[in-house]
Amino acid sequence: MHKFEEKTIKTEPIFKGKVISLQVDDVLLPDGKETKREIIKHPGAVCVIALTSDKKIILVEQYRKALERPLVEVPAGKLEPGEEPESSARRELEEETGCRTGKMTHVQSFYTSPGFADELVHVYLAEDIERVQDGLTADEDEFVELMEVTIDEAEQLMREERIYDAKTMWALQYVRLNGLV
Amino acid sequence: MHKFEEKTIKTEPIFKGKVISLQVDDVLLPDGKETKREIIKHPGAVCVIALTSDKKIILVEQYRKALERPLVEVPAGKLEPGEEPESSARRELEEETGCRTGKMTHVQSFYTSPGFADELVHVYLAEDIERVQDGLTADEDEFVELMEVTIDEAEQLMREERIYDAKTMWALQYVRLNGLV
Repeated sequence: MHKFEEKTIKTEPIFKGKVISLQVDDVLLPDGKETKREIIKHPGAVCVIALTSDKKIILVEQYRKALERPLVEVPAGKLEPGEEPESSARRELEEETGCRTGKMTHVQSFYTSPGFADELVHVYLAEDIERVQDGLTADEDEFVELMEVTIDEAEQLMREERIYDAKTMWALQYVRLNGLV
Repeated sequence: MHKFEEKTIKTEPIFKGKVISLQVDDVLLPDGKETKREIIKHPGAVCVIALTSDKKIILVEQYRKALERPLVEVPAGKLEPGEEPESSARRELEEETGCRTGKMTHVQSFYTSPGFADELVHVYLAEDIERVQDGLTADEDEFVELMEVTIDEAEQLMREERIYDAKTMWALQYVRLNGLV
């Protein structure tokens, strides 16, 4: 047991949706006092750094309702029940970009918002990708637009705040640090 | 208006807590169909890449109830109502590490989980830091332990998955890419 562990006294389920659930835990703190923790449960997600043979990065633009604006991001999506992250990465890449890859490598995983959510994102690198169909999303409530950009163009999109999320910014740094483009 | 914009038909407030709120929006999709979006509202947060004069990085370990485990992270915290991000960064740095800095620079901001939450994290770089007191958190329900590590030690913590969140991983890449240590 970690010395700062917070023991659960009671869990109150508040909401169960199609993507997230919310619960409030009453916890016992290390000093014996009590407090409440608001916790979002999420199935986990994958994202894909997809590089074309001419060293471009495939990105998708989509509307993000939580922000009331569109964002340009690496292709991503949540895990389906029972789905392995690598299978999910291959599925999302094909659904959102119409591309397949022979070489899908797990490069990192990270929690996105550990203060209130358990969402874990698994990042994959897809090289030697091949277009098999026009980019069409299989999720009926997703509308995405494909982009192929150089790393310099991606960094410009970041300065313009069209790229503005942690996983995509981490991905661009990863590409730079590892000389992938 | 963006071509993929999702028009709100109805917003149902579900929960309002001390950190997050949850609402479910009925939205009109670009193709005229309707769907629901589960949305977490968050006040926003700051984190600080704090570098000592001998090129070490100050990190804090704390228990994360949402994950039921401790994480090692850059010092961070949520914005108080009406608080400017830079003031928040200075406050969190002092509360969690007992350090002050003459030089606090905004280096990046990003959304952490744009699929379901509007949390925006502002990242600051604190150089020339000075210890003014022993690290003691001002928030009564926060227990943190201080660490000072080299970049190599931080990257080892990452491989051991003790560092395991997006903002801290982004911060370590930023430090590497910009030759700050």
